[in-house]
Amino acid sequence: MKKIFRINMSTLTVSQEVISEDYNLFGGRGLTAKILLKEVDPRIHPLNKNNKLIFAPGLFSGTTIPCTSRLSVGSKSPLTGGIKESNVGGPVSQKLGRLDVAAIIIEGQSSNGFNILRINDQGVISFDPANDIQGMGNYETTEKLFKIYGEEVDILSIGLAGERLLLAGTIAATDQEGFPSRHAGRGGMGAVMGSKGVKAIVIEGKIDGKVAPLDKDLLKESVKEFSEFVLKINKMNNQFGTTSLVKFINKANGLPTRNFRRGNFEKAELISGERITELIKERGGKISHGCYPGCVIKCSHVFNDKDRNHVTSKLEYETVGMLGSNLEIDDLDMIAKMDRLCSDIGIDTIELGATIGVLMESGFIPFGAAGEVVKLLEEIYKGTPLGRLIGSGCDIVGKVFGCQRVPVVKGQALPSYDPRALKGMGVTLATSPMGADHTAGPIFPGMGSLDPKKPDGQVEFSKNLQINCAILDNFGLCLYTSPSNKTMEFINKAIKALYGETMSLEGLYEIGKKILEMELKFNENAGLKCGVDDLPLFFRQESLPEINAFFDVPLEELQSVRKNFLK
Amino acid sequence: MKKIFRINMSTLTVSQEVISEDYNLFGGRGLTAKILLKEVDPRIHPLNKNNKLIFAPGLFSGTTIPCTSRLSVGSKSPLTGGIKESNVGGPVSQKLGRLDVAAIIIEGQSSNGFNILRINDQGVISFDPANDIQGMGNYETTEKLFKIYGEEVDILSIGLAGERLLLAGTIAATDQEGFPSRHAGRGGMGAVMGSKGVKAIVIEGKIDGKVAPLDKDLLKESVKEFSEFVLKINKMNNQFGTTSLVKFINKANGLPTRNFRRGNFEKAELISGERITELIKERGGKISHGCYPGCVIKCSHVFNDKDRNHVTSKLEYETVGMLGSNLEIDDLDMIAKMDRLCSDIGIDTIELGATIGVLMESGFIPFGAAGEVVKLLEEIYKGTPLGRLIGSGCDIVGKVFGCQRVPVVKGQALPSYDPRALKGMGVTLATSPMGADHTAGPIFPGMGSLDPKKPDGQVEFSKNLQINCAILDNFGLCLYTSPSNKTMEFINKAIKALYGETMSLEGLYEIGKKILEMELKFNENAGLKCGVDDLPLFFRQESLPEINAFFDVPLEELQSVRKNFLK
Repeated sequence: MKKIFRINMSTLTVSQEVISEDYNLFGGRGLTAKILLKEVDPRIHPLNKNNKLIFAPGLFSGTTIPCTSRLSVGSKSPLTGGIKESNVGGPVSQKLGRLDVAAIIIEGQSSNGFNILRINDQGVISFDPANDIQGMGNYETTEKLFKIYGEEVDILSIGLAGERLLLAGTIAATDQEGFPSRHAGRGGMGAVMGSKGVKAIVIEGKIDGKVAPLDKDLLKESVKEFSEFVLKINKMNNQFGTTSLVKFINKANGLPTRNFRRGNFEKAELISGERITELIKERGGKISHGCYPGCVIKCSHVFNDKDRNHVTSKLEYETVGMLGSNLEIDDLDMIAKMDRLCSDIGIDTIELGATIGVLMESGFIPFGAAGEVVKLLEEIYKGTPLGRLIGSGCDIVGKVFGCQRVPVVKGQALPSYDPRALKGMGVTLATSPMGADHTAGPIFPGMGSLDPKKPDGQVEFSKNLQINCAILDNFGLCLYTSPSNKTMEFINKAIKALYGETMSLEGLYEIGKKILEMELKFNENAGLKCGVDDLPLFFRQESLPEINAFFDVPLEELQSVRKNFLK
Repeated sequence: MKKIFRINMSTLTVSQEVISEDYNLFGGRGLTAKILLKEVDPRIHPLNKNNKLIFAPGLFSGTTIPCTSRLSVGSKSPLTGGIKESNVGGPVSQKLGRLDVAAIIIEGQSSNGFNILRINDQGVISFDPANDIQGMGNYETTEKLFKIYGEEVDILSIGLAGERLLLAGTIAATDQEGFPSRHAGRGGMGAVMGSKGVKAIVIEGKIDGKVAPLDKDLLKESVKEFSEFVLKINKMNNQFGTTSLVKFINKANGLPTRNFRRGNFEKAELISGERITELIKERGGKISHGCYPGCVIKCSHVFNDKDRNHVTSKLEYETVGMLGSNLEIDDLDMIAKMDRLCSDIGIDTIELGATIGVLMESGFIPFGAAGEVVKLLEEIYKGTPLGRLIGSGCDIVGKVFGCQRVPVVKGQALPSYDPRALKGMGVTLATSPMGADHTAGPIFPGMGSLDPKKPDGQVEFSKNLQINCAILDNFGLCLYTSPSNKTMEFINKAIKALYGETMSLEGLYEIGKKILEMELKFNENAGLKCGVDDLPLFFRQESLPEINAFFDVPLEELQSVRKNFLK
């Protein structure tokens, strides 16, 4: 039976409980939502000791099903003031799944400074002081911890942003090479971990056992078919990673350029996935690399500098868009450097890119000035007020600098998609309980029969996709397995094979709907801006020059999403 | 007939219209609410050219009725994101009333930098460039303007905070001595004026004419009776100004001390109204001084330094509380210096005091360090990121510094009252459409038969008081005339005498209710945090040590206020 571990940081004690019936078929995002709604007062300050930080592997994590090593990190978000599920890859979730961990709930607040949590290969949790690594970035932190605990551990950690409670602070997860390159990036989960007094979580041992299915043959058969499907739809991603999107989205005029002034970056070629792959090959990096051992998509890569030294793994599309075209920066090496610094500080690259865009818009530094961006990142290291400010995200910086063009929804920065060219995506960003979050229901050109530049049908499409994405996050499936009906059918087969439970597709959708309902309920009780599920007004008032389009999905239609799920 | 002037800053043109029937009996706050609800999209960015900045004298301003020179400044607030009426004294409102101005609506946005608006004694409006005064504080600005336009003008101006669009920026109004010491302080009205490109509004000429009543005798008779009543209830205020409250509120354990950790400041005597009066007398300042010529209360004073040089007029209770006890600063000369700097920069002393309290709580500077506060104010002059941050108010600084004890409601800082000791006041702060605003319905110990430390009956009391305060603000009456039934009866008599209209008390209350309804409606459409009308949770979770009390007015009762007015 799966277990829930409760770690009380106030008393440095651990308790363990078997997961209750009530949580049946809820894992990952579904489980974090259910626990938060049940146990956390939605009105508390997100950094209060009574907030909880929950790590929940997807329900399929640890099984032989490929692309299921996604970990949900849930809490009340200091960035949005609402509920948050921030999702991260790497081997951690797989390991936790194999330890039969349903969730680790971190409660209370340490009174003795920062701590290291150790989970050994029997699932026993203990505490070590973090004096030696406090004040270090994620790279130095993980290097130290590998020395102490051995090369085979996996690590979740926070950098300086999390330690300092900055709202854009992330939680880093180590990848297969041990680099802290994967991040539960969105919503300030790093700040919550910092507030608890947890610097790192070390998951020890080599965990070989896999979660045993009830019906091995059925699982094997359906996994085979599913793997083929997933491989087929991810050819580009296998070659160019998520940055295969750069040219694609640029062509659709949806690549944010100059703080969302334009949707087409004339130098997109220079920061494209194709160019990245070229450089990687020249410099002895890696392409077609998995973020965890069982992945079949392998969208990851290892990016080296000119001297063939590791810089970052990996350059994501969102990072390249928000720190590249959005800032009119076309120098991939500088973007990689920024990405490395962000990973080390533990700060969300999306939030940072949008924040710097607003600072550039305000004239604080010029567009295109990559060197100046690096200097601003150094301010975060130094802990200056300016550094704190930048680490507090786009919404706050917009207010402090009197900027009107601030690309945020519910306090969280927009990812790298212009919603005037990609209206379905815009609907998701406007209506997701997470704030602006593309992973909540990404709608790309060519999906369905919709014209991305037209408002018609986008709300209905987004609504259904948000349900399917919630289901993926519940079971720990990577978004690149696709939130399609095909994947939903596979999930049902896997449920049958793993647990012997037969469920209709309708039954599965009910889980997704329930998750959204719980999240929206939490937000409503939190007093989160509840009147308006919409994009910033400038997207409705300023036309995107390339296609002369406004965001014109009617507000009432957007608001119907909330009403639909909340009942 | 009263007129509305529309000043279009985009085109530098003025148009004039006679006030419509629809606005009958709406002036001041009521008129600003009505215009904003009708003409401004509640969802626009507050610094957008489509926001409007409205100056509306109270309906009685310019008549012989005493204490009616209150000017309402209305706009969508950059601080709260909701509607705002910020109220200011001084002679301006009286002058505008005598010019038959119902409202000046500033629209659009200047494209040629900052301008000076001139209103001559015939009510003709023209534009002058503000090149010579741009970048100056309010003191230097007004000195220059008096030289150019003559000593008899009155001036509304913004300092550096307003020019730089800082969220806590005020609009200063000159007092009888020509000092820019009166401020429409709350909600960032200075930033809106800055965004329009208006540095100053100069109201020229000596305006002698008074608004003629229909029934002179009735007005004279009721004014006499009303003046006696007002004088009787303001004996303390006449002697010690609003700072007569320091000892009174301290005794009630409601004087915020050390960022609302305590409600009793052991050195309250040193910053009391009594002590201020003593110093003023020693140093050749003035007491019992009116903020405009026709005042009978005369709560104002002129505060000099040891060398008998003018420092500030005047030290308000809110300033002394928030920059004094709240920061554990007991040096009146330092408080006066800060107040002078705030007047010059054009920044709200309440917002600043709460902001610095949070910075002290976060350990950025120590409690009691008055010199450090002055240095922080210098950062605003310099326009550094830290300066911008501090000028952005308490809510933002709390988020940037990861502070949990942030005394704000709807983004606006609490004034100088601890709501655990003064629960009725707490209800007003929690539920007013303005955010935390004591003037929206101030409930002091001894008012009604309520025990200020008990939650019982406070919601009903606050609700009724909020109606009466809205009525005062509609007619331009100073809050010190009291939001009592006696004053309401007088207002009805004055309406009869001035306009010949007979109205029941119920009819008058309907005006107050209508104002609140419009304001709440605007906020709802703005998507202002609408789920929670409550104080920050720490007031419910931390006991006020002196009386061991939490804020315990039930949330449902607080939320009934909104429901009551919105219908």
